[in-house]
Amino acid sequence: MIVVNGGSSSGKSGIVRCLQAVLPDPWLAFGVDSLIEAMPASMQASDAGIEFAPDGGVSVGPEFMALQTAWMEGVAAMARAGARVIVDDVFLGGVASQQRWQKVLAGLDVLWAGVRCESAVAAGREIARGDRVQGMAVSQAEVVHQGVFYDVEVDTTHTESLVCARNIAGRVRRP
Amino acid sequence: MIVVNGGSSSGKSGIVRCLQAVLPDPWLAFGVDSLIEAMPASMQASDAGIEFAPDGGVSVGPEFMALQTAWMEGVAAMARAGARVIVDDVFLGGVASQQRWQKVLAGLDVLWAGVRCESAVAAGREIARGDRVQGMAVSQAEVVHQGVFYDVEVDTTHTESLVCARNIAGRVRRP
Amino acid sequence: MIVVNGGSSSGKSGIVRCLQAVLPDPWLAFGVDSLIEAMPASMQASDAGIEFAPDGGVSVGPEFMALQTAWMEGVAAMARAGARVIVDDVFLGGVASQQRWQKVLAGLDVLWAGVRCESAVAAGREIARGDRVQGMAVSQAEVVHQGVFYDVEVDTTHTESLVCARNIAGRVRRP
Amino acid sequence: MIVVNGGSSSGKSGIVRCLQAVLPDPWLAFGVDSLIEAMPASMQASDAGIEFAPDGGVSVGPEFMALQTAWMEGVAAMARAGARVIVDDVFLGGVASQQRWQKVLAGLDVLWAGVRCESAVAAGREIARGDRVQGMAVSQAEVVHQGVFYDVEVDTTHTESLVCARNIAGRVRRP
Repeated sequence: MIVVNGGSSSGKSGIVRCLQAVLPDPWLAFGVDSLIEAMPASMQASDAGIEFAPDGGVSVGPEFMALQTAWMEGVAAMARAGARVIVDDVFLGGVASQQRWQKVLAGLDVLWAGVRCESAVAAGREIARGDRVQGMAVSQAEVVHQGVFYDVEVDTTHTESLVCARNIAGRVRRP
Repeated sequence: MIVVNGGSSSGKSGIVRCLQAVLPDPWLAFGVDSLIEAMPASMQASDAGIEFAPDGGVSVGPEFMALQTAWMEGVAAMARAGARVIVDDVFLGGVASQQRWQKVLAGLDVLWAGVRCESAVAAGREIARGDRVQGMAVSQAEVVHQGVFYDVEVDTTHTESLVCARNIAGRVRRP
Repeated sequence: MIVVNGGSSSGKSGIVRCLQAVLPDPWLAFGVDSLIEAMPASMQASDAGIEFAPDGGVSVGPEFMALQTAWMEGVAAMARAGARVIVDDVFLGGVASQQRWQKVLAGLDVLWAGVRCESAVAAGREIARGDRVQGMAVSQAEVVHQGVFYDVEVDTTHTESLVCARNIAGRVRRP
Repeated sequence: MIVVNGGSSSGKSGIVRCLQAVLPDPWLAFGVDSLIEAMPASMQASDAGIEFAPDGGVSVGPEFMALQTAWMEGVAAMARAGARVIVDDVFLGGVASQQRWQKVLAGLDVLWAGVRCESAVAAGREIARGDRVQGMAVSQAEVVHQGVFYDVEVDTTHTESLVCARNIAGRVRRP
């Protein structure tokens, strides 16, 4: 199990796809984007769900948290059932977010990978992606790493996704 | 837990989105499309993975089956952890596919929903969707229902997705 | 040249894809969605651009109109250069929108096709599509046809896209 | 009018979105991807249309060329009608592709921008994008620039899209 944490536009998704390409076995990849995709459309922009503010802020309500916890349990169960799983997440709560995962992943062999990117560079990539809402990259760049422990850290500011992925893959223990 | 089974272009996805809209609680929706999305790109068009033939045939290899089983365990775990979950699937193996799910979902309260659509109509909707590969709709229309047991069946040939979803939702037991 | 007009969720896109499949020659398809896609992200949700209100209302500013006019001239030029072109549009201004097109398409052989769908059915299909904003289907269902002239009209309420497309294709004059 | 030329995965699309963000006026953006999108699904993987070989090769047939020429005329007409237009293209024919554009754009004020990226880096980004077909990046990296004239050249190997876009934008003449 690999957990990849980083802010919006830090390059997590590209690194995850490269990890799937360079790792010798097939790995499943899930992430907060696929979770949001799985939720009812009405959970977006609702107080109980998830809200994206015009300034890039993200706030998450109690129903979102409850569904997320069950989803995390499910992802852990896939790993316990023998699947190799990569999860990418945005630890909006910093170390508290990591502790939620640690509790759910108890007993599993987890590689914690941090993806950093200089705030200004991430903001530029946010523009290049064409997202209508700007500001997430900057507001998340630092906060998601606060107090978080990593086995391996990469920085996409000056390093390509594929190289970052190879660094992470080199730390994966073959059973 | 709701399991929705039907062939390609039968209208499953639209029904699932309507179910999420009409059911009073928030339900998570997963399906075979999101599973394929989670797999490495190389698993598509590989003997061990999943292959889409030019005539619309779909063949699935041993590595795909292994990851799928772990994914099914994970989806079951989400439901056991308290999430309301809708799964849409294409029972390429007919009753054998259902039995795989039954084993994994043991102990859970499951509503089995079948989505039918006349083969010719599904083939037309396949064209309307603009899929490059034609033929899946016809080749799957009958085979996915062979020997399968349902709590509720709907037919999208002459009935709108929203009406079908209301029929299914009416059979969901509130705890 | 074929101009297809209808409200949101009336089934225009599916009909256009079916037209491309059933017409014997290759036709290019453009539409208001591809125009919005071509605009800067900032033109969405700006007073001068295009705004989608939470109730499904759509308002269009002067800069949007100016770019749209130039885009319409370009689409006409493609047809004059020999391409077969299908355009789908939402005549928010009713007959005034048609007159804008008539002016731009002067001298070209145009087939005007209207796509109708009962308001309640279109609203249901809007839910099935999973759009976050609801209400466009209902607010546009009638207004886009006001005063508009058609060579052929289809209604997707009870008729499949492919059948509607065949009706329209049957009216295309072969040179 | 700005014409941006570069190989697959060289970073053209990101640069175009950044150009739309940094240029003071609204610019429309079209490209070879939007042209393919506009074609019938059947034109893909057909001898007369466009074929993507498993090794990343791209071959283009006579019907594709004919529609493309008409599309180019249309894009030129949008610019003549007063729209600011950015086109991104892949000059598979090198200088011959540029000459096709020059003929069509006669009389318009055109800024020719070349986007380079080291072949190995582009290949890595192709993996990060998760494209199923690998090889386009490498096979196109050099050939698309052969004999082509530029007003401004950027290289995304070590330079961010936003910085490249600012370099290009700095060369745009304000009327």
